[in-house]
Parts: sequence; C-alpha cells; structure tokens
Amino acid sequence: MEAKTAEASKTIMTDLVLPSETNPLNNLFGGELLARMDRAASIAARRHSRRIVVTASVNHVEFNRAVPLGSVVTVEAKVSRAFKTSMEVYIDVWVEDRESGMRTKANEAIYTFVAVDETGTPIAIPEIVAESPLEIERYEGALRRKQLSLVLAGKMKAKDATELKALFA
Amino acid sequence: MEAKTAEASKTIMTDLVLPSETNPLNNLFGGELLARMDRAASIAARRHSRRIVVTASVNHVEFNRAVPLGSVVTVEAKVSRAFKTSMEVYIDVWVEDRESGMRTKANEAIYTFVAVDETGTPIAIPEIVAESPLEIERYEGALRRKQLSLVLAGKMKAKDATELKALFA
Amino acid sequence: MEAKTAEASKTIMTDLVLPSETNPLNNLFGGELLARMDRAASIAARRHSRRIVVTASVNHVEFNRAVPLGSVVTVEAKVSRAFKTSMEVYIDVWVEDRESGMRTKANEAIYTFVAVDETGTPIAIPEIVAESPLEIERYEGALRRKQLSLVLAGKMKAKDATELKALFA
Amino acid sequence: MEAKTAEASKTIMTDLVLPSETNPLNNLFGGELLARMDRAASIAARRHSRRIVVTASVNHVEFNRAVPLGSVVTVEAKVSRAFKTSMEVYIDVWVEDRESGMRTKANEAIYTFVAVDETGTPIAIPEIVAESPLEIERYEGALRRKQLSLVLAGKMKAKDATELKALFA
Amino acid sequence: MEAKTAEASKTIMTDLVLPSETNPLNNLFGGELLARMDRAASIAARRHSRRIVVTASVNHVEFNRAVPLGSVVTVEAKVSRAFKTSMEVYIDVWVEDRESGMRTKANEAIYTFVAVDETGTPIAIPEIVAESPLEIERYEGALRRKQLSLVLAGKMKAKDATELKALFA
Amino acid sequence: MEAKTAEASKTIMTDLVLPSETNPLNNLFGGELLARMDRAASIAARRHSRRIVVTASVNHVEFNRAVPLGSVVTVEAKVSRAFKTSMEVYIDVWVEDRESGMRTKANEAIYTFVAVDETGTPIAIPEIVAESPLEIERYEGALRRKQLSLVLAGKMKAKDATELKALFA
Repeated sequence: MEAKTAEASKTIMTDLVLPSETNPLNNLFGGELLARMDRAASIAARRHSRRIVVTASVNHVEFNRAVPLGSVVTVEAKVSRAFKTSMEVYIDVWVEDRESGMRTKANEAIYTFVAVDETGTPIAIPEIVAESPLEIERYEGALRRKQLSLVLAGKMKAKDATELKALFA
Repeated sequence: MEAKTAEASKTIMTDLVLPSETNPLNNLFGGELLARMDRAASIAARRHSRRIVVTASVNHVEFNRAVPLGSVVTVEAKVSRAFKTSMEVYIDVWVEDRESGMRTKANEAIYTFVAVDETGTPIAIPEIVAESPLEIERYEGALRRKQLSLVLAGKMKAKDATELKALFA
Repeated sequence: MEAKTAEASKTIMTDLVLPSETNPLNNLFGGELLARMDRAASIAARRHSRRIVVTASVNHVEFNRAVPLGSVVTVEAKVSRAFKTSMEVYIDVWVEDRESGMRTKANEAIYTFVAVDETGTPIAIPEIVAESPLEIERYEGALRRKQLSLVLAGKMKAKDATELKALFA
Repeated sequence: MEAKTAEASKTIMTDLVLPSETNPLNNLFGGELLARMDRAASIAARRHSRRIVVTASVNHVEFNRAVPLGSVVTVEAKVSRAFKTSMEVYIDVWVEDRESGMRTKANEAIYTFVAVDETGTPIAIPEIVAESPLEIERYEGALRRKQLSLVLAGKMKAKDATELKALFA
Repeated sequence: MEAKTAEASKTIMTDLVLPSETNPLNNLFGGELLARMDRAASIAARRHSRRIVVTASVNHVEFNRAVPLGSVVTVEAKVSRAFKTSMEVYIDVWVEDRESGMRTKANEAIYTFVAVDETGTPIAIPEIVAESPLEIERYEGALRRKQLSLVLAGKMKAKDATELKALFA
Repeated sequence: MEAKTAEASKTIMTDLVLPSETNPLNNLFGGELLARMDRAASIAARRHSRRIVVTASVNHVEFNRAVPLGSVVTVEAKVSRAFKTSMEVYIDVWVEDRESGMRTKANEAIYTFVAVDETGTPIAIPEIVAESPLEIERYEGALRRKQLSLVLAGKMKAKDATELKALFA
C-alpha cells in the first residue's frame, strides 16, 4: 500500500447553524458540533483508507467560543497520522462573521477512526505523508496522544509511555 | 451555597437507536452518541447548578462497542466534581439485549460544563458531596483530569501539574 | 413463563424540549410529547416481554400543563398489567423547574402494546406482579380500561362490560 | 360569532412514511402517527377558530393496521363539534396501496383542542354546523365523549354523566 | 394502458411551518419548500403511474412570497402531462392567513418524475386526460417546457425545438 | 462598492447521505438534494454580499445520476454573476466512490438569491469579477438566463429578450 498525503484526505463541510441545533442562549449545542465533526472526520478517514470507517475515540475537545444561531460554520478535517488500522483525524472549526467576512477559530478536535471490512474486522491502511509544517507538527504529536489514550484506557503502563513521560520530566 | 450530593444530579436518558442515527454497518454513529451524552450531561449539570449551562470540553471518549439499530441505550450522567463555576460530569452508557435483558457497558465519557447567567457570564455553583466508592474515586480523579486539560490547552505548565506528575513518576 | 414485577419494566427518559419541537406559544407540541411517550412506553413493554412490541392503542390523554421550550422533561413508563399478548403501560410525565429544581406532574397517559415475533404475529408474555399501592391501583383499573376500549371499538357490548357498568351503576 | 360548517375546517395531509419514522418491523412508529395527526388536527382547529390552538386531550386511539415504510399516508382532520372554547377534531387515516391504488382505513382518532389568545387564555369560538350523516353522527357522539373525558379526569361524577349512563343502562 | 385524468393524481399536503425550517428572517427556507414540493409531487406521480418514481428534473421555480414561521402551507400537486416513461407534475403552493382564513398563492413549481421498476429501469406509464381549462393549458405547455429542458441540457438543437421557436418568432 | 471575485464566494459542503434522506430505491431524495444545494448556495450568496439573503428562484435542475445511501456528496457553490440586488449562484454536485476515490459529477443547478436588510428590503451588492474560463462562461450565460426567467414569469416580452432570441434565431 502506497502512502498518501494528509492533504488528499482534506474534507470541508460548510453549513449554517439551524434553529433546531441551538441551546437556550441561542448558540449551537456542543453535542451538535461533536456530531458534525464526527461526520466530517469520518469522511476524511474514508478518503484516506477507502474503507468503511467507525469512530474509535474522541480526544480532548475544548469549546472556547459560542457559535450563534445563523452562523456559517466551516469544519475542516484531515488525517494527521495513520497507524496499522487506525487513523488520527485533526479537525479545525471556523466561524464566519457575516458583515466583515472574518473567520475566527472556534475550536479544534481530534478523533480516531478504525478502518473495517464489511464484517466490521479492522483492516490495514496506507501511511500518511505529512508535508506542511502544521501537518508535520500534528503527525509528530499523534504518537504521544496515542500513548496518552492507551494509558488513560489502562492498556499501557504510564512508565512505558516514553513519549509522554518526556513531557512531564 | 450548600454542597449537594452527586446522586442529586443523576440523569437517566433511555431511548431507542433510530434508523436515522445509524452508519453503513447499521450501528449508532459515534457523533449521535456524543450528542445524546451532551444532552444528558447538560441536564445533570443543570440539576446541580440550577443555572443555564454550556459545554466547555469533552474529555477523552472511547467507543469500544458497536450499538446496533433498534437497541435500547441508557445514558446515565452524574456530576462528579464541581469547581468554582465549572462541573465535571461522568457519563456511563449501557446497551440492553432485547432477548436476555442483559445490560452491557458500551462506553464512558467525561464532559465539562460551565454555569452561566442570562448574559453568558460564568457564575459560582455549589460543591459536590461524593458518597459511594465510585463517586469518591471519580471525584478524586477530577482534579488530575482538570490539570491534564489545562496542560494540553497550554494554560498550565506540565511541571506545575502536581497531581499529574505523580502518575508518571 | 414467570411473572415479573412492574418495577422491572420501569423506563426513564429525561430530555430537553428542543426548539424544533415547539408550537407558536413556544411550548412543546402535544404531538411531540405523544411520540416521546410512545418511545418510552415501547421500551418498558419490551423490557417486560423481551419481544418486539408494536403500539396497539393509546388511552385517553390529557394535556393539563404547557411545557415551555428549554424545559427538562422526564417521561417514566411502567407496565401496569399484562394480558395474554398485550400490555398496558402507564406513563407519568414530569417537568422540572430549573431554578427551584421542583418537579411538577405535566400529564399521564396509558398506551397498550402487543408483543409480536419477527413475522408480526402476537406472542404470549409473562404476567405482571404489582407491588406498590400505586402499581396495584393501576393494575386493577387496567381491566376496566380494557373493557372500555373494547366497547368503544364495538368489539364488546356495553352490557357485558361488568367492570365498567359498576362505575356507572 | 357565526356558526361554520365542519367541512370548512377539513384538512388533508398526504405524505410518505420516511425511513426515520419506522420501527424494527419497518412500519411507521405509533408515536410518529400520533404526532402527524396532532399537526393535521391542530390545523383543522385553527381553520375553524382562526385562533392559536393547543392540544387539550387525545381520545382513545386504536392502531389496527401496520403502515409500512414508503407508504403514502393520508391524514384527514375535521372539527366534529365546538364547545365554548374547545373543539373536538375527528381524524381519519388512510393508507394507499401503490400498485392497486386502493385506499384502506388505517385508523381513527379524536383530539380536543382549546383556542387561546397570545397570552394562552382560552377564548370563545364559533359553533359547528354538521351537514353530512357522518358529520351529524360524530357531532352527536361528541357530548358523550366529553362527559367520558370529564369522568375519567375526575371532574364530573359518573352519575351526572347522563349521556354516558344511557350507554350502560 | 388506459389514460387517467389529471384530477386522479391530485395530492394535497397541508402542514405547518416548523421552527426547524426557518431562515434568519423567520421565514420558511427555500430549500425546505423545495423538499416538501418534491414529496407531494412524487406522490402525485406515483398515484398516476402506480410505480416507484424518481425525480428527474425541477423546472424554473420562483419564490415570490415569504412564508412566515407558524404558517399553514398547502402544497397541491397534479400530473399535468405524461410522456412515455416520464411525467410533468404541476405544484401550487398556498399560504393561509390565520385570522382572515384567506389563502394566498405563494408560488408554483414544475417537477418531472420518471417511473421505474425495482431495478431502477424506466417503465411505460398511462397518458393523462386533461379536463379543466387550467389542466388543458398546463397540458399544452408541457411539450414546450420539455423542449426547453432538452435544449438547455444540450440534448436538442434550439432550431429543432419547434414549439419553443414559435414563442420567440 | 468594490467588485469581488467569484472565487471569494466559493462554498464547499461535503457530507454523507444519511438513512433519513433516502427514497424506496435507497437513493438520496431529489428534494433533500435541493435543500442541501439551497443551504450551500445561500452561504455563497452571503459571502459575496455580506447580507442576509433569501432564495428568489431555482433555475432548471436535472437529476442525472442516483446518489446511493452512504455516499459522500460534495456540493460546491459559487456566485456566477451579481445584478443590482440579486445574485445567480452556480452549484456543482459531485459524488465520490469509496473504493476508487473517483469523483463523478452528479448534477448542476442554478439558484438566484436576493440580498436584503433586516426588514427584508432588497439592498445593493458588489459586482462579480469572473476569472477562470468556466467562471466567464457562466457569467456570460447569466444574463440570458435572467431574461428567460423574466419571460417565463411574464415580466418581459419574449421579443424584448435580445440575448435569448439570438439562441433561437
């Protein structure tokens, strides 16, 4: 299997914030944004792997900025690193001001997907070639995040998470 | 403000997996489950604070078990710890087998909510009294998770995260 | 088949009133509440019978209290009595005031479900054991309601509805 | 206020059964049909009263016939009788066979609506003129059903429900 | 195959404008109305052909009049002309004023459907008998519109579109 | 007001075909695609005008290719020409094959939007600068289409539609 660029998986989902997706402050529900990011990220994962993909985990997500009703929201998803059968997908969310046209970063998220065949069995996928400085930075962080995920899930001992330990040394 | 028990915030949302919420393998979309958990957790946070609440962050979430179309899914949310204006909410998701009636743990998640007034300004909330062994364990882990969140967001230096460092020592 | 307690079928569905479910007065549409109660009641019927269940009828439902946008609504469903292949399910709906935390009864409803196999053929189900005073009262009323239903549907003559006649004697 | 014919309130809602509205047997959920009937009936009540209307109660509803995915369903609603501020609406539901074009009665339902002003206060409405034999039959039955509703709600003593007692005499 | 009247395909879909279907001015989204018209028109096409039908094209649609939240909207669809395997469906949309009861024409649209068998292959359908003056006018215009459609799609040369050329002579 | 490039309005909406959006052949409903295209095109119109925009008309749309459940669909919208207060938006729809990754053109559509202020009054907008050969071709065709639209709406006499007459000469 030939490695593919991160750019080749890039997925853009621009859409409005509809009235049925808002909370009592008339802002987009956190849960709705999580669902949109999941759909965009799953398409990026599918573009990289050309397989059926299922959500395996969601990394830490911060909601720093309220997204008001009627906003234009752009969700951009790109595979940041591929492991044997799983992919880390990095998602950037932008909100656009109607009058000035300015785009502001609303939040970032990281989801992990597994490629599976029709029976749901994990299946090998191509590697990622990171090209831009941001892609390279995210590619390199992916291993550290994978270790953190394994430690938090109790599947790896903290002392074996070499990448992670370096952070707290 | 008087402290309140974790149990007092407990929220149960039992519902079916509907056809419009499934992926190509006929299982519940990860994104839909994230949205349901957000709604249940926001109700638990609101029950504790009696305020409007907004999602601040989602901790690491693992999807270990596919949830097929037509399943009965129970989402149970409980505030695990309150900080000054924010609350950590622990969510347990159970899937029920129709024929045997057996409930299996499908996944866990941790969301953080902030209590706000009508203008969106954060507002102080009561403390949590953890009672059961599980509530106490989750209460104690909450500070470590908060530090991790601050470190990952670049708002605290790793070396100052005393609770966290202990983990990797 | 062993009889099962009413309590064992208890189903709790707590959720928000979303903007897409409201009428011009900004209250929950009657029809949406009917749909939610149907889902909760069908889960209770399924928990009792461990079969596929289909809605057979809806008893008289009163909407005594408007349920405003953003409310937390709790639908509690419990099988009140099982007949040969059908079950009566009693549903209580509560609305919760955000500031005081007080729960107010919004309405009650009674649905009847039939247990069926994969071909849609009715199939025998266990009996119900009513334990609490309220469960016993509802269990006893169920036969009277079944007769009323048969009379209204023209499937039983009013003069044969002994339980019902007693009411008007 | 001038009386208006039942026919003038007639409301027809023909629509498909969509995939998101079906149960595990691939038939329309009872709850979804209840919601559609509520919308159609509320339009009939609004056409008669020219007021905002809210659902007050749902009479006994039987689901005699499964409605498969992809069916064309016609919901017909007509005000059967007006009281001081409330209206009884009779709803007939038809399912259409694609190949033969034959329409089969799927079920009937009776909803009651109250006309209100912008503050939600009940407001007087015109009387109904029943013309066809079926309209007259339903008009006459409406008083009996209203008494039954009051008795079941504990707002009228069974012995005072003269119309109803006659039924069981 | 025997020809059938246009009237026999008539489909009426009356429904409310719900909060989840409105734009920032609180009027019905154009796209939602297009989707409703598609469902109503597909039922008319199915009633005429008694086949599975799929949307083939949408003719020019004007949105002349905003449709506010809470309006009662009536979509009326009727097959205007049948060709070998395709049907032109004419759709009239009416909005109803709650207080006066007056119906105003909101817009018109023309959709084309193709009748297909279970494999998606086009299949012959009966002809249309136009009876009323309006039905006859629309029947006659249908051929001109079909030529326009073929010219715009580059499937017919403008000079061969005899019906159309007459218009510009 | 300074003219802006067509490219500056470009809007990409990539999303999945969900189960709730499919017809009996398990393909995307025409009406759902019309609604998605309306949302994407309205964002392009808003990006160009930085105003509230409302759908004014939909040009002829062909559905040449079925879009199966689970497909990845990309809707690309770009303003092709601006008139005084209205904009023509050109929409291209692509469907992506999961296994080969190949994108196929599913259909094209042309919508017209009007820019309005908060009271719904039309308001002047910047002109469009067409740059690429395709943008120029679409820019030039826009006037012809506008005339066709006016002729079909009876607002311009066919003999005055100079651009259009040339087509049939």
